[in-house]
Amino acid sequence: MLKLFYAPGTCSLAAHIALEETGVSYEARRVDFSTAEQTKPDYLAINPKGRVPALVTDRGVITETPAILTYIAQSFPDAKLAPNGDAFAFARVQSFLSYLCSTVHVAHAHGRRGARWADDPAAHEAMRAKVASNMAACMELIETTMFEGPFVMGEAYSIADPYLFTMAGWLESDGVDPSRFPKVLDHRNRMTARPAVARVLAALKA
Amino acid sequence: MLKLFYAPGTCSLAAHIALEETGVSYEARRVDFSTAEQTKPDYLAINPKGRVPALVTDRGVITETPAILTYIAQSFPDAKLAPNGDAFAFARVQSFLSYLCSTVHVAHAHGRRGARWADDPAAHEAMRAKVASNMAACMELIETTMFEGPFVMGEAYSIADPYLFTMAGWLESDGVDPSRFPKVLDHRNRMTARPAVARVLAALKA
Repeated sequence: MLKLFYAPGTCSLAAHIALEETGVSYEARRVDFSTAEQTKPDYLAINPKGRVPALVTDRGVITETPAILTYIAQSFPDAKLAPNGDAFAFARVQSFLSYLCSTVHVAHAHGRRGARWADDPAAHEAMRAKVASNMAACMELIETTMFEGPFVMGEAYSIADPYLFTMAGWLESDGVDPSRFPKVLDHRNRMTARPAVARVLAALKA
Repeated sequence: MLKLFYAPGTCSLAAHIALEETGVSYEARRVDFSTAEQTKPDYLAINPKGRVPALVTDRGVITETPAILTYIAQSFPDAKLAPNGDAFAFARVQSFLSYLCSTVHVAHAHGRRGARWADDPAAHEAMRAKVASNMAACMELIETTMFEGPFVMGEAYSIADPYLFTMAGWLESDGVDPSRFPKVLDHRNRMTARPAVARVLAALKA
């Protein structure tokens, strides 16, 4: 059975929702960030990067959200979570996933994880000061140039949707008013009404 | 005909090599960073992010290196640049691409592009000071936990190889001695001997 290592409040939510959308049986295993479990040997044996998510399959472990989402979409084609077989449409989904992981998530991470990129506490403060404007710039670009509607890639729901939903859920804590981005906010609201999303959110609160 | 917008010294080298490996006809169009062409309206109409690479296809533009590499691998399956059709093996390639774009490239970018994440010049200096140790930590993780050999993913050459080659080429300028990572360095040396790589490197010097 697939086993997802996750932590609340992190980007593992995207993979969690995608798994739930497929209807497959899986185990969700919480990693306890309050005790830094992700830095302990037992977890590093699963994911040497010390991050979540990690998906354990019968052939090995997959890390990195875009890779896990793509694996889910390709392993369960009946769930229609990606345009498998159409290289251009598939690449557009990959482009969106890459933008979220390499630019949007990185912009967000400078608010709490500045120690990754500088040792000086004053530099961390300077990074925190720019998070809101950077996240707003990312959402502006998504709103105006990427979001097709009603779903991210257009008519078809895909793995891009839970990933955007996850990052759009960080806006308030990053100091950004989501009402500035009406398409992204409307998408976020509609996502919470999806049964698979509601089930995952309820499980995280339990 | 496919048209690749590139700039020397950037991650567009990976897509450039992958295109050359397929044997397909394509146009390589240099974007002049010395005049900030990537920020001008003509280029922003192609890629609103103002970055390279961008690949223009007959169906539209693809941006983000992992997406372009995946598009090339799926569009030209005879070149065998990815394990298409094997969801797990394909996901492992995607995982490596994601790690390079979201962690390694980001670590490197803090040396020259600190203004993306903070406004204070002292913070930029603090970021520059940590680039060498961060890039070394990334290469250590690749060397010890990801690199299968003789190619990144094992016996088969893939889109992961030109992408690692591109980032391994930044080590000296990032203050890292590549001899600390013998597998990565040997791979870099073997890559330069591949005919497709040599053709691209010669074209960039012309």
